[in-house]
Amino acid sequence: MNAEIARQLNHRTIRALTAQPLSQEIIDTLVNVARHTATSQFQQAFSIISITDPELKAAIRKITKQSYVGATGHLFIFVADEYRNATIGQEMGNAHHSLGNTDRTIAAFSDAILAVQNTVNAAESMGLGTVILGSILNDAAQLIELLQLPKLTFPVLGLEVGYPDQEPQLKPRLPENFMHFQNTYQLPEPIVPQLKDYDEIVHNYYDLRETNQRVDTFTNQIYQRLNNVPEKRHELLQTLRQQGFLNEAN
Amino acid sequence: MNAEIARQLNHRTIRALTAQPLSQEIIDTLVNVARHTATSQFQQAFSIISITDPELKAAIRKITKQSYVGATGHLFIFVADEYRNATIGQEMGNAHHSLGNTDRTIAAFSDAILAVQNTVNAAESMGLGTVILGSILNDAAQLIELLQLPKLTFPVLGLEVGYPDQEPQLKPRLPENFMHFQNTYQLPEPIVPQLKDYDEIVHNYYDLRETNQRVDTFTNQIYQRLNNVPEKRHELLQTLRQQGFLNEAN
Repeated sequence: MNAEIARQLNHRTIRALTAQPLSQEIIDTLVNVARHTATSQFQQAFSIISITDPELKAAIRKITKQSYVGATGHLFIFVADEYRNATIGQEMGNAHHSLGNTDRTIAAFSDAILAVQNTVNAAESMGLGTVILGSILNDAAQLIELLQLPKLTFPVLGLEVGYPDQEPQLKPRLPENFMHFQNTYQLPEPIVPQLKDYDEIVHNYYDLRETNQRVDTFTNQIYQRLNNVPEKRHELLQTLRQQGFLNEAN
Repeated sequence: MNAEIARQLNHRTIRALTAQPLSQEIIDTLVNVARHTATSQFQQAFSIISITDPELKAAIRKITKQSYVGATGHLFIFVADEYRNATIGQEMGNAHHSLGNTDRTIAAFSDAILAVQNTVNAAESMGLGTVILGSILNDAAQLIELLQLPKLTFPVLGLEVGYPDQEPQLKPRLPENFMHFQNTYQLPEPIVPQLKDYDEIVHNYYDLRETNQRVDTFTNQIYQRLNNVPEKRHELLQTLRQQGFLNEAN
């Protein structure tokens, strides 16, 4: 096993970062890696926004409800972006396009999300810690306003990168037989009794970890969150549509 | 710059793979890396299907219309999967859930797509070549039937991995100032005249590359594809809904 794979198998989300900022050289390198990620049909349908303004950081922190967001480290927002390509089309004389349809929506989201993980891998190769922030979608409409995102763009994920100030335990993942199948989808069912050993492992993980200890299992965590929708997240479909995505009109 | 980042900056999609199959050990390692990818709220809302059946490979190749798909190398399909978590809920006595809403749809897609890129990075660290296959969505409904995907699952991306049988040139990416902004979205406009140098670089790339030479620029490629929707891709929104995603009912 090579060093990169050893590190990938040991991936932990790092929420506590030291006060040491990333150098401009490191930020440039991370963005450069992101740029070189595979992209669907060479559309390069994503952009990155670096958040450096303290007031903006505070506003995003408030949206995420996570105290570490924008506190230390460097905060990137990865944006699905068909606006750039629509603008190219318009300037070249064709304002009619299908860039907001579901197909392109998925492609733009894919471009952005693949770039997030590529950036994570680059950061970790330099000994940096990362936390991917789905929590920016707690209020997507407000974030769109804050970042002045035009139509045909959408903030997909945040990514905070910095120097680790914690060494959390490795969080145990679902055993392979529950998530990797041959040729057809074949979940072992009933699944809950078969997850007993894994539940025990997750229970031990929560019980023994150094911070935020609690009593929980995997199945219980899934059960508790079956209907968990933070209020504004009900508006996500509407916000996506307002940005011009998932639009089959053209 | 470390070796991993050097390799990431030199990423090329590898469509031509030798006949040498991946060992079971390598396949297991790749899946193990995918399992350890960051996951939204520890939901682990994705699964992987390895395609080993020759007839199934041929059927997927036909959907993608790409002769190299399933020809050599190992073919993975990454699946957004909220079915597993819905099943856990149902077995524990709660059939009512929000796992198909837009918020969870985005989260499940993110989990699957982040895992794809993590797998790509692992494969490339072993000297393997990869091609990410958005083309599986040319006929999502048929693929769902072939893979026997239940409701609340959706095939997001394919990934073919194997031993490289080509060394393509590096495809030049958009300069950073067109895709990385500070604090707010600020695309330099009008963009087409400012892309003149990049268009020239892309033109040279297509002109000089060893295979599939053509005369093209970036802006022209975007322009030509503004309204390019393969027929069945018009049905993607409907197929997503039929699978129970983007559903705000609960």
